[in-house]
Amino acid sequence: MTCKNCSIKPVYSQISGVKLCRSCFIKYFEKKVIKTIKKYNLIQNNDKIAVAVSGGKDSLSLLYLLDKYAKKYKNQKLIAILIDEGIETYRPKTIEDAKKLAKELDIELKIYSFKDEFSKPLDKILKELKENACSVCGTFRRYLLNKYARKLDVTKLATGHNLDDEAQSILMNQFKGNIEVSARLGPITGIIKDKKFIPRIKPLYFMTEKETAIYSYLKGFTSKFIECPNSYDSYRDEVRNLLNSLEVKYPGIKYSIVNSFLVTLPLLKDHYSKSRKMEYCSKCNEPCSGTICKACRIIEKIKN
Amino acid sequence: MTCKNCSIKPVYSQISGVKLCRSCFIKYFEKKVIKTIKKYNLIQNNDKIAVAVSGGKDSLSLLYLLDKYAKKYKNQKLIAILIDEGIETYRPKTIEDAKKLAKELDIELKIYSFKDEFSKPLDKILKELKENACSVCGTFRRYLLNKYARKLDVTKLATGHNLDDEAQSILMNQFKGNIEVSARLGPITGIIKDKKFIPRIKPLYFMTEKETAIYSYLKGFTSKFIECPNSYDSYRDEVRNLLNSLEVKYPGIKYSIVNSFLVTLPLLKDHYSKSRKMEYCSKCNEPCSGTICKACRIIEKIKN
Repeated sequence: MTCKNCSIKPVYSQISGVKLCRSCFIKYFEKKVIKTIKKYNLIQNNDKIAVAVSGGKDSLSLLYLLDKYAKKYKNQKLIAILIDEGIETYRPKTIEDAKKLAKELDIELKIYSFKDEFSKPLDKILKELKENACSVCGTFRRYLLNKYARKLDVTKLATGHNLDDEAQSILMNQFKGNIEVSARLGPITGIIKDKKFIPRIKPLYFMTEKETAIYSYLKGFTSKFIECPNSYDSYRDEVRNLLNSLEVKYPGIKYSIVNSFLVTLPLLKDHYSKSRKMEYCSKCNEPCSGTICKACRIIEKIKN
Repeated sequence: MTCKNCSIKPVYSQISGVKLCRSCFIKYFEKKVIKTIKKYNLIQNNDKIAVAVSGGKDSLSLLYLLDKYAKKYKNQKLIAILIDEGIETYRPKTIEDAKKLAKELDIELKIYSFKDEFSKPLDKILKELKENACSVCGTFRRYLLNKYARKLDVTKLATGHNLDDEAQSILMNQFKGNIEVSARLGPITGIIKDKKFIPRIKPLYFMTEKETAIYSYLKGFTSKFIECPNSYDSYRDEVRNLLNSLEVKYPGIKYSIVNSFLVTLPLLKDHYSKSRKMEYCSKCNEPCSGTICKACRIIEKIKN
């Protein structure tokens, strides 16, 4: 079997069975990301975009592609933000990859750390708190990303979430009965105008994790494939495994889940926007959905 | 551990860990079904209800409970409809159980068969067609139930669908990207007035399959537990197994899936009701969503 266009050795097989060589796969990947950006109107001409980079395959592919997009279209301003949680066995290696690509692309990379912001790195926080690693880490990361994106005067915060991430989130919320949380998903979120909340965009929304991994590998963005050591005992990891085994049996199931969700998403957004308004944390004044934001509640526990 | 109320041996343990004895379980079960009927306004005073009975645990529990409900409240008229698909190793045994209970309750039982209606029993149809058994069977059953419920002048068609059935349907539609089909789910369906489509109600909507099995067993409705021989290689059966294994790990996940769905259901119904209207099959004049209904399309194949 050869590439459908070039009759050379393929690197990738689509669900339909169509095979693509290195060059055609890269074209397919980039075209689909641009299609997503245009279809969901993720980027406007005068946007200044902060790209949330971890140094992993998703965020580096994203940084590269948004740079390419900006250069091709309206030369939107880009800046990269990296949150160093302080995971000793993992983050330093990915920071090197992020620095390397940012330098190559001549994009400013801002690094903010849990240690500077919350007095302790994640490794230490987790030893003391015994809370779910991904919950603490995710809360703090989102908190810092929004805070610094705003301070840097950006208009959009781009994240490397892919199709697998979204399908996992949809099922996780559904399985836990947190349907309201799902109303905050989608290719673009936070479009309700609020001066303190930076809208988030997910240009890799329709790319599978596998596709992004191949793209990143072919482009040489990551020096080696490493995963966060905390991810293995998480609920997300279980749902990831479930979805991957379902995908083997029913190819395309991840697309089906996300596409079904995209029918209900505007209905959910409309439904919840009527009953909710953005509030601000009484401690830090950052946007939140209660009196005290989740980050401040964790900070309180760290202090004690 | 004893029953939370009676300090006697329990027959059932709720997700919360609360245990119930035989008598308290029966009270709990019946109370919850009545609560569902009232909350979703499933039955009105002047209703005449056809109960779709297969002779299995769900439908016999339903028949008994609706009879009890009618006698307690407004004495709504009840009639039972049984569709004999012609599954030799299965259906004759359940028909006996259905006849027995209908006689005890003094409810008229009407039996309609695939053989009389479509010239052949299901066993024979499946040998000839090589189509998915559950798809053919379900299409013909729904077709006959609606047709005869209407001929019998009933105002509601009650089915024994339980929480497990609903959670399975929600996931199946989601996994296949058939979100529009999910808009037809819920505790009451077909409420858009159409003279040819009898609204369907599911009073066991919030009862798990396990609870219904225990209730039916304690009440002695079914002579022995038998399952349809065609169910084992169905997609539904796979989703059932998946949900059961998830439920073991995350107790309450079926409730979460159904409760999440019930938030989106009115939004979906509203969304699709704007773009769709009931149509009638050009061959049989029964309600359908295209030019020729699915039943007539299968009938056409049987003839050839």
